Amino acid sequence: MHFTKDRIDALETRTRAHFINSLSGFKSANLIGTQDIQGNTNLSIVSSVIHLGANPPLVGMIIRPHSVARHTFENILQTGFYTINQVNQSIYTQAHQTSARYDRDESEFDATGLTAEYLMDFKAPFVKESRLKYSVKLAEHQHLAINGTEFVIGEIVDVYVVDIAVEADGFIDLDIIETVAITGLDSYHTTAKLARLPYAKK
Amino acid sequence: MHFTKDRIDALETRTRAHFINSLSGFKSANLIGTQDIQGNTNLSIVSSVIHLGANPPLVGMIIRPHSVARHTFENILQTGFYTINQVNQSIYTQAHQTSARYDRDESEFDATGLTAEYLMDFKAPFVKESRLKYSVKLAEHQHLAINGTEFVIGEIVDVYVVDIAVEADGFIDLDIIETVAITGLDSYHTTAKLARLPYAKK
Repeated sequence: MHFTKDRIDALETRTRAHFINSLSGFKSANLIGTQDIQGNTNLSIVSSVIHLGANPPLVGMIIRPHSVARHTFENILQTGFYTINQVNQSIYTQAHQTSARYDRDESEFDATGLTAEYLMDFKAPFVKESRLKYSVKLAEHQHLAINGTEFVIGEIVDVYVVDIAVEADGFIDLDIIETVAITGLDSYHTTAKLARLPYAKK
Repeated sequence: MHFTKDRIDALETRTRAHFINSLSGFKSANLIGTQDIQGNTNLSIVSSVIHLGANPPLVGMIIRPHSVARHTFENILQTGFYTINQVNQSIYTQAHQTSARYDRDESEFDATGLTAEYLMDFKAPFVKESRLKYSVKLAEHQHLAINGTEFVIGEIVDVYVVDIAVEADGFIDLDIIETVAITGLDSYHTTAKLARLPYAKK
């Protein structure tokens, strides 16, 4: 089945969004916890969190400043801090519900029943129900003029993870803690390990 | 289990790489097909392909210019064209093998047994065995000074996908075509759908 550029351009907007969002493959499912300087909390599901590097430990994400994630981006700029909380199978419907368009003074924690948790005096809320979560300090953000999105880069500070998931060589087993994956705009998936493959040599 | 920043910094380099690479969650598995101006082909597995936007249709990826993906990046700069080919369960071991450090004059197609395929006169090779693939035109690349990586942004041109996978609303079923997901540096996963959730409303 061949979709030319013209055929893609001619798709109805929502259809094109489903189609193009499917092309990159499996996406990460994370909840971003923030608060404004008054302490009002916000929680937002994001499928664009991406590994950037291990030395220094950096994580990136793409945010559309006018989307439902707008308060997340504003809070990060205000405080410089946020948390990233992996979404697992037990909370994925609540996590998805954070994508509804709540007002600034409504907390998605209250709206969805997820529990805000403060750890090590970090100035942003974690999700208690998440089994792998970490605090992040804003490093920089780049405006992508090509489509008006923001590429937000943060430095990983403290990591909290269920101990059975961490293997001797540092690898974390995301199947065991039932982290989910996302495809397209709205599809959630469980996973099963095929294999860990050895470092490839010629 | 709490890993402080100091504890993470103290991890042995390879252990830290496994650990930090696991934090973002599930990653996409794609093969990037390129060729240089002489027509020498290159194929490289990348776990950092990310959806950037549907209008215009844009896709991003992070490349370390001094890694095994260096030839991919050089070819993209030379020609302006590349292909992105989703990795499925039948080819994931061959896909992983492309991460070995082959010389510039060795083609990963020959080395791994994957088949180069040319479609619509596009000046970069596709992977015949991939069930969802598309041609991409380089739009821009940004150097991330914070860790020396390159953020490569491309415009999606033509899409080729097995027809049973495309649903009426544009969503593509990646479970059906057995696209795999990656965690950490070397772990490959199959998936099963939990649900597609409705657009969230307050």
